[in-house]
Amino acid sequence: MSRPPHSKPPHGAPPVQADRARPINPLPRREFEAEAGGPSWIWGVHASLAALANPARRVERVVATRNAASRLPDGVEPHILEPDAIDGMLPPGAVHQGIAVRAFPLEPQDLEAICGAPDGRSVLVLDGVTDPQNVGAAFRSAVAFGARAVVLQDRKSPPLTGVLAKAAAGAIELVPHVRVTNLGRAVETLRSLGYVTIALEGEAELGLADALDGKRSAAIVVGAEGKGLRPGVAEACEKRARIPIAPAIESLNVSVAAAIALYEAKRTR
Amino acid sequence: MSRPPHSKPPHGAPPVQADRARPINPLPRREFEAEAGGPSWIWGVHASLAALANPARRVERVVATRNAASRLPDGVEPHILEPDAIDGMLPPGAVHQGIAVRAFPLEPQDLEAICGAPDGRSVLVLDGVTDPQNVGAAFRSAVAFGARAVVLQDRKSPPLTGVLAKAAAGAIELVPHVRVTNLGRAVETLRSLGYVTIALEGEAELGLADALDGKRSAAIVVGAEGKGLRPGVAEACEKRARIPIAPAIESLNVSVAAAIALYEAKRTR
Repeated sequence: MSRPPHSKPPHGAPPVQADRARPINPLPRREFEAEAGGPSWIWGVHASLAALANPARRVERVVATRNAASRLPDGVEPHILEPDAIDGMLPPGAVHQGIAVRAFPLEPQDLEAICGAPDGRSVLVLDGVTDPQNVGAAFRSAVAFGARAVVLQDRKSPPLTGVLAKAAAGAIELVPHVRVTNLGRAVETLRSLGYVTIALEGEAELGLADALDGKRSAAIVVGAEGKGLRPGVAEACEKRARIPIAPAIESLNVSVAAAIALYEAKRTR
Repeated sequence: MSRPPHSKPPHGAPPVQADRARPINPLPRREFEAEAGGPSWIWGVHASLAALANPARRVERVVATRNAASRLPDGVEPHILEPDAIDGMLPPGAVHQGIAVRAFPLEPQDLEAICGAPDGRSVLVLDGVTDPQNVGAAFRSAVAFGARAVVLQDRKSPPLTGVLAKAAAGAIELVPHVRVTNLGRAVETLRSLGYVTIALEGEAELGLADALDGKRSAAIVVGAEGKGLRPGVAEACEKRARIPIAPAIESLNVSVAAAIALYEAKRTR
């Protein structure tokens, strides 16, 4: 039920182009329609503080209410605004908790550079998961259960800002992400690197616990709700496995499924 | 980042009172502001079909697009509408997939009647979890992992419709829920019935797996993100335990934490 984050400007307004050369003052009212590769807003205490703490994050601007500014680290000079003024800069309904950070996107990493020489940590691969809340929650669980990287499809994945960053509660700053044009090939690469690649599918016969190999690091491959994994991606996996659930319900929420798989992979290694 | 579901009418319009005596035609344009105890909308294929399949659910009206109507069970006579017309009846952004059902709330059940004589199944207790997406996802996981009931606080819990019902994907029809005025007392009741009552808290020393007792059914007690459990509720629990996560991240998403606890409780019994 989340709205698409940045797909449409509200109320039919034309997208506001971010002007990188523009000085901090005056603030344009709404500029959450990011140009590709340009800066966009991250909001909420956890997400904002994590972005500021990440040396790889190029931050353009920080806005905060007078109260919330006390939570910022030393050396950060926020633009102090009333809560309403921050509301006005962000998408409708954004729960910013008094802090928002306008930052450039994080650089995706190279798959083999990040995931080479498996070390026990899992890799999470998301196929066609477009709901930003689910992707954000998956990042959060990836960090919680010590995943090594999150692998996303280049074109169909939402930008790592806004609603997604809020749902991730800072996690997008804490685990590398890889964007690939061909997920099936990425799975094959992970397999050749030594990962046990596991397609999570509700209709699989093998249980997840039996698919996990305590000796090999796992790459957990999860598809979108409803659609599931694309056949080419599932077929590239060494194993297909399911999380045992009651027959009364068709599937788990995708971020819940990812979390349980990462939890189980960590528990059993 | 979800919006509160029914708290405000859009664009400052006054709430539309549902008129129960009104015939199916004509359809008022927006009536998702339910009166307490009155009917409200459930939308999406899974949520709607589950509501229609639940004999305990009193349904006032079914609307569907011509295409989606073919998915309805025999005997259900929907009001056929264009997708836009259904859009107009629901909160902005509601992804209805061509089906919506206007139904009266489900009756909450009595705690002791539903949870007496523990039988191995877990009970999920939610303290102050108000985000409808999270509560919906928690219901979905409760069904997936065979929970016996979901216990909610009477006043602070969102209604089981709309965004929550969509996130639950039909699960609110499949597991009984109990509403209590005093959650601490409900925990004590569960404890006296023989459940091992476990407060999930990030700062607890005991790991979840060690807190679970393979012989006793578990009542898993989860608080809201950020706030956590209220002290009175946590203190009523026999044990306090944590899901082991990396120190880099403060907590799991609340519906993910609930899911992992229910998964682990089912796995270890």
